[in-house]
Amino acid sequence: MNDMNMELRTGTGKCLYEQIYEHIRTEIREGKLLAGEKLPSTRSLAEYLQISRSTVDYAYEQLLSEGYIEARPYRGYFVCHIEELLNSGSVGKISGTYAADLIKAEQDTHGGKEWEFDFSPNAIDMSAFPFSVWNRISRTILSEEKSELFAAGHPQGEWELRWTISRYLHASRGVNCMPEQIIVGAGNDYLLMLLEKILGRHVKIAMENPTYKRAWKIFRSFAYEITTVDMDEAGMKAEELRKKEVTAAYIMPSHQFPTGVVMPIGRRMELLNWAKEKEGRYLIEDDYDSEFRYRGKPIPSLQGADQTGKVIYIGTFSKAIAPAIRVSYMVLPKDLLTVYREKCYFYSSTVSRIDQKILNEFISDGYFERHLNKMRKVYKGKHDLMLEKLRPFCGRFIISGENAGLHLLLCCRDNRAEQELIKAANQKKIRVYGLSDSLVSNSTEPIWGDHAVMLLGYGGLDDQAIRLGIERLKDAWL
Amino acid sequence: MNDMNMELRTGTGKCLYEQIYEHIRTEIREGKLLAGEKLPSTRSLAEYLQISRSTVDYAYEQLLSEGYIEARPYRGYFVCHIEELLNSGSVGKISGTYAADLIKAEQDTHGGKEWEFDFSPNAIDMSAFPFSVWNRISRTILSEEKSELFAAGHPQGEWELRWTISRYLHASRGVNCMPEQIIVGAGNDYLLMLLEKILGRHVKIAMENPTYKRAWKIFRSFAYEITTVDMDEAGMKAEELRKKEVTAAYIMPSHQFPTGVVMPIGRRMELLNWAKEKEGRYLIEDDYDSEFRYRGKPIPSLQGADQTGKVIYIGTFSKAIAPAIRVSYMVLPKDLLTVYREKCYFYSSTVSRIDQKILNEFISDGYFERHLNKMRKVYKGKHDLMLEKLRPFCGRFIISGENAGLHLLLCCRDNRAEQELIKAANQKKIRVYGLSDSLVSNSTEPIWGDHAVMLLGYGGLDDQAIRLGIERLKDAWL
Repeated sequence: MNDMNMELRTGTGKCLYEQIYEHIRTEIREGKLLAGEKLPSTRSLAEYLQISRSTVDYAYEQLLSEGYIEARPYRGYFVCHIEELLNSGSVGKISGTYAADLIKAEQDTHGGKEWEFDFSPNAIDMSAFPFSVWNRISRTILSEEKSELFAAGHPQGEWELRWTISRYLHASRGVNCMPEQIIVGAGNDYLLMLLEKILGRHVKIAMENPTYKRAWKIFRSFAYEITTVDMDEAGMKAEELRKKEVTAAYIMPSHQFPTGVVMPIGRRMELLNWAKEKEGRYLIEDDYDSEFRYRGKPIPSLQGADQTGKVIYIGTFSKAIAPAIRVSYMVLPKDLLTVYREKCYFYSSTVSRIDQKILNEFISDGYFERHLNKMRKVYKGKHDLMLEKLRPFCGRFIISGENAGLHLLLCCRDNRAEQELIKAANQKKIRVYGLSDSLVSNSTEPIWGDHAVMLLGYGGLDDQAIRLGIERLKDAWL
Repeated sequence: MNDMNMELRTGTGKCLYEQIYEHIRTEIREGKLLAGEKLPSTRSLAEYLQISRSTVDYAYEQLLSEGYIEARPYRGYFVCHIEELLNSGSVGKISGTYAADLIKAEQDTHGGKEWEFDFSPNAIDMSAFPFSVWNRISRTILSEEKSELFAAGHPQGEWELRWTISRYLHASRGVNCMPEQIIVGAGNDYLLMLLEKILGRHVKIAMENPTYKRAWKIFRSFAYEITTVDMDEAGMKAEELRKKEVTAAYIMPSHQFPTGVVMPIGRRMELLNWAKEKEGRYLIEDDYDSEFRYRGKPIPSLQGADQTGKVIYIGTFSKAIAPAIRVSYMVLPKDLLTVYREKCYFYSSTVSRIDQKILNEFISDGYFERHLNKMRKVYKGKHDLMLEKLRPFCGRFIISGENAGLHLLLCCRDNRAEQELIKAANQKKIRVYGLSDSLVSNSTEPIWGDHAVMLLGYGGLDDQAIRLGIERLKDAWL
């Protein structure tokens, strides 16, 4: 509604309500107003435009009845997600390119009201989170602490939190680091931005294909040259890195997204050897969801096997605690730590000290560990239920990616296209995701050849939803 | 203490306590352990190294007695700030380059224990902050809100907060924007990193000299070509921008740091006209402390005078609320908003939704406005007291930069060098700051010619400290 304030004219042929209605409609049609974006409340907009509230009400009614916006109880008015509109060229290039993000943003933010079942591989289960504990810790800290907490903090994050994280990483992920090597930051995206400053601009980075698309988008927004590298059941092939003369490789050795591949120790060593061969080569280990493993011991980190400071280790609390707390951490090898302190030490921390203190107590008082153990059980339950319910699919699909993470993969045995499967599911109000969302180039063959592969995430669905959802999916796919 | 864990060897000539002692001492000498950095507690370090606590105690005692570390009651052990060490070459290039930052970090974090009076221009007064209100809001939100707040939020920040900020900016700063144009981020540094992604890498940016050094460091860490531009009593000269063919200019028109220059409307128009002349030209307005003006009305923002979408407006809550809450905001002109949504929309927000909600209520319930009014009075009181106490200095110094901000400037009439003045103050345990800290190049003449200019910040000092500090400064400078 960027120029709502300029749009309104009295004395034109159109009455005010029409002008508001048409303005918002245009903004939506042209993709300027985002799917899922909240509109101002009628009260605040009326006040802002200095017109009567009923005028705004009237305009909203009209948009509502035409399906441009939807009303959500206790929430307000939101821009609808209008598939055709976004897919049609009518929206123009911009929204074309970010339509997908918009829809995703909407899904994330509002739980995708238009679907009855959403098998998003990114959703997590917050229902078991110990809100009361978290809030109690927060309240205690806020009541006891005074100005000190509100003063500027250490650029790398508070020492106490870094110490706690280093202990946790050592115990549960086999990561060898001292607090000095840790940088706490507001999310992986930010830490990767910081890493760009540390590694400099002349980086040629190798990624698997398929890979974690967000990381690819971020590297693409850097000056980095990105190349995709063939992978097999062991993950990224080391010799490819030599052929393509890359300087860094982005990998998820404990649980590759989306394939679920766990990199065996042999391949890890090959990669470490590649990195050792030349100065300035690094492996970026994204350990995004390694907490969730349902069979055997958790896979130790690659960083733990690194003797020569070649691994940049990145982890997050988004999956294990909550996406909204915005706390991730990066463990730098010593030479890069020196570069960081030389070149980037002036960047102030992006995480509030209060939040750092809350998180520190949540972990050091043992609540985090307890929560993880609980969630491992919860997710294992969903994982097992998924496998049980999906048994009838084995005839027409190959199921993989089990025993870890928050999603399964279904590879279609027949030659149905991904879009066919998605459409069939959508018609039943089920949202499913194709592997191609994670493909960053076609230069390399996906390891499944031409067969369509679907991602079924279960983190955000309760048992009942899984039962009904898979049942419904049968009608769509079998 | 990066490799403490590897350093320890039994069976060598040295006993464990010596090894710990020598390791830490070396880390400090080599600038690897930061001045002001906290050491692990003896308990946690002993536990980590699986040795007896008394061994660690012994090592710390030794370091303490030799002045490498200091013990702070209830806080723990901290690395001392050892002037000579940092200034001597002995620390090597790295610490040489970040020594200043380390000292500053220490000052910020720990209040610079070794000074009796610190006239830091960056310090603010938190004593009047309504902690109880802030904490009450936090507690209410935390008690009433459930999982929704912990879900991922909107990449630009929650709509409600952006709406509140847009209303505040409109009312108090004359900024014209809709919430859609606002991006909420974890500090100015992050927002500038984001801006780099939006503007792209081929930017030639103009800065005043002297200017805000942190911004300069950040731009320098980008691919940006930085050029300094002569300034006069009206600020940056517009014709210089044409001569030097820059694409963007970083300015603080409401209150230039450190000179305190307020850019008159005429000069503002010249700059806006320069920006209008060519596509892709932008003015980056850093409105860092415009809330604090002690005479006449607050100076309206440059953005408010911009008809053609040429101003990128950046503001922060660090000065007006607290550095630690890590919330800043950037208002993008519409064309850049489009670029942002096209190229950067996938970057997730860096501010926790809980913090956003707390801040939103703090502002929209009127507490922010009240706090600002109170702080304006508090700071005006300090400002007036400073001027009164500094009267005796008028003979040998020209005082400027009054009526706004949190510091004054003293330009030395005689030919004493900045270092002389600083040393004289330091000998009296007074910490003062020279203008040269803010000089980013010598290519342009500081507007004071060769005369030494000192910055005297008063935000962090109470009336008593101001009285005694200035009294003591007399002996040093008069």
